[in-house]
Amino acid sequence: MREIGVAVIGTRFMGRAHANAWRQVRAFFDPPLVPYLVVACGRDEGNLREFANGFGFEHATTDWREAIRRDDVGLVDICASNDVHAEIATLAAEAGKAVFCEKPLARSLTEAQGMLQAVEAAGVPHMVCFNYRFFPAVRLAKELISDGALGEIRQFHALYLQDWGVDPKLPLTWRMKKELAGSGALGDTAVHIVDLARFLVGEIEEVVGMLTTFIKKRPLPDGSGLGEVTVDDSAAFLARFASGATGVFETTRVATGRKNFMHLEVNGTRGSIRWNAEDPNVLWFYSLEDPPKVRGFRRIVATEAEHPYAGNWWPPGHILGYEHSFVHAVYELLTALAEGRAPEPSFRDGVAAQAVLEAIARSAEERRWLPVAT
Amino acid sequence: MREIGVAVIGTRFMGRAHANAWRQVRAFFDPPLVPYLVVACGRDEGNLREFANGFGFEHATTDWREAIRRDDVGLVDICASNDVHAEIATLAAEAGKAVFCEKPLARSLTEAQGMLQAVEAAGVPHMVCFNYRFFPAVRLAKELISDGALGEIRQFHALYLQDWGVDPKLPLTWRMKKELAGSGALGDTAVHIVDLARFLVGEIEEVVGMLTTFIKKRPLPDGSGLGEVTVDDSAAFLARFASGATGVFETTRVATGRKNFMHLEVNGTRGSIRWNAEDPNVLWFYSLEDPPKVRGFRRIVATEAEHPYAGNWWPPGHILGYEHSFVHAVYELLTALAEGRAPEPSFRDGVAAQAVLEAIARSAEERRWLPVAT
Amino acid sequence: MREIGVAVIGTRFMGRAHANAWRQVRAFFDPPLVPYLVVACGRDEGNLREFANGFGFEHATTDWREAIRRDDVGLVDICASNDVHAEIATLAAEAGKAVFCEKPLARSLTEAQGMLQAVEAAGVPHMVCFNYRFFPAVRLAKELISDGALGEIRQFHALYLQDWGVDPKLPLTWRMKKELAGSGALGDTAVHIVDLARFLVGEIEEVVGMLTTFIKKRPLPDGSGLGEVTVDDSAAFLARFASGATGVFETTRVATGRKNFMHLEVNGTRGSIRWNAEDPNVLWFYSLEDPPKVRGFRRIVATEAEHPYAGNWWPPGHILGYEHSFVHAVYELLTALAEGRAPEPSFRDGVAAQAVLEAIARSAEERRWLPVAT
Amino acid sequence: MREIGVAVIGTRFMGRAHANAWRQVRAFFDPPLVPYLVVACGRDEGNLREFANGFGFEHATTDWREAIRRDDVGLVDICASNDVHAEIATLAAEAGKAVFCEKPLARSLTEAQGMLQAVEAAGVPHMVCFNYRFFPAVRLAKELISDGALGEIRQFHALYLQDWGVDPKLPLTWRMKKELAGSGALGDTAVHIVDLARFLVGEIEEVVGMLTTFIKKRPLPDGSGLGEVTVDDSAAFLARFASGATGVFETTRVATGRKNFMHLEVNGTRGSIRWNAEDPNVLWFYSLEDPPKVRGFRRIVATEAEHPYAGNWWPPGHILGYEHSFVHAVYELLTALAEGRAPEPSFRDGVAAQAVLEAIARSAEERRWLPVAT
Repeated sequence: MREIGVAVIGTRFMGRAHANAWRQVRAFFDPPLVPYLVVACGRDEGNLREFANGFGFEHATTDWREAIRRDDVGLVDICASNDVHAEIATLAAEAGKAVFCEKPLARSLTEAQGMLQAVEAAGVPHMVCFNYRFFPAVRLAKELISDGALGEIRQFHALYLQDWGVDPKLPLTWRMKKELAGSGALGDTAVHIVDLARFLVGEIEEVVGMLTTFIKKRPLPDGSGLGEVTVDDSAAFLARFASGATGVFETTRVATGRKNFMHLEVNGTRGSIRWNAEDPNVLWFYSLEDPPKVRGFRRIVATEAEHPYAGNWWPPGHILGYEHSFVHAVYELLTALAEGRAPEPSFRDGVAAQAVLEAIARSAEERRWLPVAT
Repeated sequence: MREIGVAVIGTRFMGRAHANAWRQVRAFFDPPLVPYLVVACGRDEGNLREFANGFGFEHATTDWREAIRRDDVGLVDICASNDVHAEIATLAAEAGKAVFCEKPLARSLTEAQGMLQAVEAAGVPHMVCFNYRFFPAVRLAKELISDGALGEIRQFHALYLQDWGVDPKLPLTWRMKKELAGSGALGDTAVHIVDLARFLVGEIEEVVGMLTTFIKKRPLPDGSGLGEVTVDDSAAFLARFASGATGVFETTRVATGRKNFMHLEVNGTRGSIRWNAEDPNVLWFYSLEDPPKVRGFRRIVATEAEHPYAGNWWPPGHILGYEHSFVHAVYELLTALAEGRAPEPSFRDGVAAQAVLEAIARSAEERRWLPVAT
Repeated sequence: MREIGVAVIGTRFMGRAHANAWRQVRAFFDPPLVPYLVVACGRDEGNLREFANGFGFEHATTDWREAIRRDDVGLVDICASNDVHAEIATLAAEAGKAVFCEKPLARSLTEAQGMLQAVEAAGVPHMVCFNYRFFPAVRLAKELISDGALGEIRQFHALYLQDWGVDPKLPLTWRMKKELAGSGALGDTAVHIVDLARFLVGEIEEVVGMLTTFIKKRPLPDGSGLGEVTVDDSAAFLARFASGATGVFETTRVATGRKNFMHLEVNGTRGSIRWNAEDPNVLWFYSLEDPPKVRGFRRIVATEAEHPYAGNWWPPGHILGYEHSFVHAVYELLTALAEGRAPEPSFRDGVAAQAVLEAIARSAEERRWLPVAT
Repeated sequence: MREIGVAVIGTRFMGRAHANAWRQVRAFFDPPLVPYLVVACGRDEGNLREFANGFGFEHATTDWREAIRRDDVGLVDICASNDVHAEIATLAAEAGKAVFCEKPLARSLTEAQGMLQAVEAAGVPHMVCFNYRFFPAVRLAKELISDGALGEIRQFHALYLQDWGVDPKLPLTWRMKKELAGSGALGDTAVHIVDLARFLVGEIEEVVGMLTTFIKKRPLPDGSGLGEVTVDDSAAFLARFASGATGVFETTRVATGRKNFMHLEVNGTRGSIRWNAEDPNVLWFYSLEDPPKVRGFRRIVATEAEHPYAGNWWPPGHILGYEHSFVHAVYELLTALAEGRAPEPSFRDGVAAQAVLEAIARSAEERRWLPVAT
């Protein structure tokens, strides 16, 4: 049995999602390369200890450089805040480690391109964690599209609505500072629907966008008054794909009542699909192949043995959740590593998504359509 | 153009639904026999005048016997309270008029049988208004079942939940008095799901039931204190059909939050359907003929030209409502009359439903399974 | 009882929806001014006769000028194709008749402004038929917003997806020719969501849009080959409202599987609402006033006596459909006429919507944000 | 840190669900007593090894008696087939171990009572795994009911529909043999909704039931022909609770198209709730306390910090799945053990549910209402 040691850098939301995935993949899948949790890295010692202990890491450290240097670490998993992605990825690549990085890849297109260059120069495997690609229902959507079940795709619509920012008393965190996060809803949530658009429909050629910051000042965490929010809390944009398809996208942190409402719809000449992250096991599929009298969107509960990944978990209709998408992602990563293939989505996909974000941001400033850099 | 004059007896909820149907059928369908509204009958003169005027009746009277006697009346439409159904139907039949009667046909099986005897003895056409049979989606369900799309039917489930009785301050009306209504939820709402069960699955052979009256006293309308509710406000029963299929039924007037929630599901060896009266244009259909990977309940919006009745109204997706079912019912009645066929559902169906209700009521008393009289 | 004679010009989809409304309002409402159907006008004699007879018009003519001239006509109801709206409205106004006109008001902003000038110069009452304002649930949404239940509105999203154009063999009709229709999905369906945006959120200040024609040639109705589609079949645009709120809009005729899917969502600082035309009785409402533990979108079935218009129809939960919105619209029109008030929405609203459409069309050509003319 | 060693007996569906729970509770909760996976027991050596290795058990054995005897095992977790529950539980109790047992507790009431006697005689802690009690939304339902938000409960409805048995070529397994399983859908799935009824509404006093076996013969696993199915594949029953509330229940393995469709509705004098296991994060709640104009079922996405268990996982709207209910169950078990309290639901609850099942089965034979033994 071949094994690979993993260092997880970051212990909060994403650190937990990734650590869980590395552990669960071993229990529910049979990866050809078996991961073990070597070292956890975090800034806050108390939290780090609890995290490392809970998930069963062998070691814990507040120094991520030390973690990267370890001989027993073969893969560095970056779950830290956006501002340190580039530095960690570059050093990890130079140390010859495989690199798995949370989205958005970086704070800017230039930074992302630098990371891609670093991993390619070092010749190490690399993957960006666009976890939404790995829900069984999304994977099934991809299969249907690839099989031609939708015909030629004409339209892509995506809404990604959250409301965690709606309370003006919520303190200013790194996610609201441009120098740390790069952007707001754009890099945090729009990036997911941009990636899914690329995954399901193909490259985006041009965009016109609108960025808005509804809540412009928020309390500083130290109680010393209000600080300025320097990123968008809402982003919307229109797009044209290389294929001629059109796209309409919106994301926001202030849609009162919406929690993790990511809704996708893809319309083609022969059929359509839609999917929602708040009911993630279900894929809706409409086909013109059905007899006219019984045409309708089918509510496919993608939990059957026939559906991607689902057979490894529970019987049909036993619902899978958010975290499972990460398990599937690391399963694909491990399989690619074992088979010597390049994992997908790679840093190239991370860069491509970043190029779209960058075009949107510039378009919003220049108030006109702009091409996406390629 | 052949025409038929209609007398509508009753001017409240059902009187309005029927009068509307007689009028709309002429505008949206092309019935081979054209109805015109000759006379409206009601007890309250003020309300009667407004009703007759609003719907364009030629005449109005508080004496239903007079209405029946008119030479220009060819069809008597009974929308009065249950206690007078039998008398009106019998006199109308004796006068040679076609008879259209609201459900439940009567207050008891014996009374219903008497009505059937009367119309058959007189040789007049007769129909009972089980309007739910005439929603396009329900009709489509029937077609699918007849075409074998569900295979052999195994299970029928029906919930019919309302909450208009939940307020204990609601006064005692005729619907809550056994001598006037015959029964409560049983005759009022259970009768609809019993009829739909017979329509979609076939005859019911035996039942076991439970009747409950949660609110036992209510204010008298004249303010003179409380009066006793002498009918059930909730009914539930299990059933076996002649085919071997099983049935589970529940109806109630006190399901807080439920308005006109009639939910049906039919499971067969090859497929299933479900339907809900609060989203009445939609039929859900699951088929084992679909490839395993894309099996799911199809959400068919039954508003296409391919769907029963729908093409006579609006373009696809333009929602039809409750009242349309009555228009379709009278369209079928008029067509049958013009073609000299017996309309369906007939008083025989009314009697058959009543036999089921009677068996349920007796079963509830005797606390055991009982056969349905045939 | 005061009465008003109505001439309906156009006998197809909209002609039927309006004729039905004029008739139903009398049966289900108690309008202070009672409409009677004087004359129906259409081009095809056979169809006209059937239409006039079915709805009970006193007269029928193929000459709309004749209809307008009649002394017994007090109101001219324009349901003809877009290219004749202006001429009919102008002559009707000059003849001193009240004018009720289907949307879009005209083929262009200039034409619409001319119509407004005509009715104002003549001093006649005028209304444009934005029927979606008159669904009980939409009206309830408006009430909640006016009452402040949503706080300050930040975001408006609207999707209006249909698929009647998806079949490339569908012949070229007037709706696909620029000279007859003015525009495609833009004027036909986008105009509804633009009007609802204005109704619920307020004036739109600037837009950036994208118009697409996916199917560029279609069979000519006479079988003589293919003709060019000269309008958009899909339109999408971003908007900023005068209030600072943002808007995202999309409409299309080629969203395979979507029938009359108009979906609205409005997010405010204190709450949110959403509504869908395919489930039109339901309003979803989320409020931050609810205790945190039980916050959620409420599914309000707007069929109670407390809800606008609903009490005039059936008991709670008995579903109203598409056509009812027109009945409510003419009820409001009749009431305004009787009370000497200006009806709403007026030709001013028609012009305002047209100005938004025009800005979108120009923005799509110039590929940049543009202000809406005021 | 106090710890407890766990032996898991059974490595299939339930074995995996439990092993996962013991492991996850440590990562996502902070149990006062920390479980470690000492030994896994199963019959099939190959499968056992994979199971033990995947979940990180220290040991594996095909001899469950050996596992029970180990000094480092403090808790025996029974996930084996129903026919060995009693023997394992009894020996584990005699060995002084805490016992956690999958449902149904036993094959019959007598057997279940014996198990209860054994654990009580031995004085060891005991819990039965009715995992559905531990979904956040179900827990929230319980809180709302306890807080009086529904008033007095009148009606409980539960449907639990699956279709894994619909294919007649599915081989005969232990779940279809009376001597191994005790009963069919009754003990397998009805038992869950009986337990939830008791949890949410209280004790059931009398029942009338109907058991059906639609598919009476199935292929023997060894290919030697057909064998007889000796249990029900469908069960339905009516019930009266001690409180006077009524219950309607149905469960089946042959509802074509239904996967794990468990639907509950509880109607009370002041409000109602409903919940569905295929959309398990959502609780629907209707309250008469809301102003009439905005009453409706609230769709509560029970993933907020305010909701039971949810705060330990992911941010709001990030969906939890089926397996999480087991994690919460073992968290409650560990907490009770640490605090010296009796865990809930205990073997007493297992016995009480079994008494209801037994009454249903006898009622189905005797074709009449029967009291539930207490």
